[in-house]
Amino acid sequence: MHPLRRHIEEVISLEDAEFDHVLNHFTPIKKRKHQYLIQEGELINKEYWVVKGCLRAYVLDESGREHIIQFALEDWWVTDYQAFEKEVTSQIYIDCLEDCELLYITKSDREKLSQEFHKMERFWAKKTKFGYIASQNRVLSLLKNTAKERYELMSAQYPNIIQRVSKKMIASYLGVSRETLSRLY
Amino acid sequence: MHPLRRHIEEVISLEDAEFDHVLNHFTPIKKRKHQYLIQEGELINKEYWVVKGCLRAYVLDESGREHIIQFALEDWWVTDYQAFEKEVTSQIYIDCLEDCELLYITKSDREKLSQEFHKMERFWAKKTKFGYIASQNRVLSLLKNTAKERYELMSAQYPNIIQRVSKKMIASYLGVSRETLSRLY
Repeated sequence: MHPLRRHIEEVISLEDAEFDHVLNHFTPIKKRKHQYLIQEGELINKEYWVVKGCLRAYVLDESGREHIIQFALEDWWVTDYQAFEKEVTSQIYIDCLEDCELLYITKSDREKLSQEFHKMERFWAKKTKFGYIASQNRVLSLLKNTAKERYELMSAQYPNIIQRVSKKMIASYLGVSRETLSRLY
Repeated sequence: MHPLRRHIEEVISLEDAEFDHVLNHFTPIKKRKHQYLIQEGELINKEYWVVKGCLRAYVLDESGREHIIQFALEDWWVTDYQAFEKEVTSQIYIDCLEDCELLYITKSDREKLSQEFHKMERFWAKKTKFGYIASQNRVLSLLKNTAKERYELMSAQYPNIIQRVSKKMIASYLGVSRETLSRLY
């Protein structure tokens, strides 16, 4: 079974012809480690699904420090959602931490599929809900957890990420200094 | 026009009979200032829409300190989305900061309406998207902005909230100390 079909069918069911139709709206791309999917200031009309690889989404603050908003591994969706939905320029960067294989869909094609198939609207709605819940939990963790607790929560929830990215990036994602994290682990 | 209809029709269009059918799935309630909608440890099967009033969602950490996740004013939707979607017990409290009038819908009725009307699925999907984007921006602000910048962003984005809640609560929402905020404003 196509990996995207397996992924979609975790939420809804598709007939063979329906999945073929859906898949026709996706384009495969490969990116090498260090290449960018998205850079600050761009207009974004693509959403990406990770077939293989690991990426990060981050912002640069005024002093040039990176703050990591999100990692993305196999089966995750990633883009700058604010830029994608509201048609404003991106305020983030997304780059590849490993060689990556991705499938992307344009905003107009996603819109078209959502209109054509109630169940695809439902699928994406469900993915957005889970993204929203994860983001709310992240806010909570940033507000109330110590550096140690944040690291432990992340290790429990995303063991794969911990194994695949550097300690420096984990510190940036958790909003703690590299030194603090080193003292703990 | 009913305020809920005006709100829904910002995203989709409804016939009179459709709106009447939708509205039949909502129940009005009134709560007085200081009353709770949701308490930690409860199972949550209702989502609330604010007709009038102001609420806050918060967690208590182990030392008993409050951390405010979200405020909600007129036209906002509020619940513990993790508990609501995943059918786990709530980890948050939601209480009324003013006397409130609300409409609630149960999870099964929301599900039913989303199944019956593709456009209601679409409406809620859009609301979730905007919630997700706001939450991602909050993560970003917590990671990269100083106390002063956070307050200024909040003042620009939510002037109504600034006017209606205490400085102490704003400090809790921004993840800064009351003293830091007082020194700035």
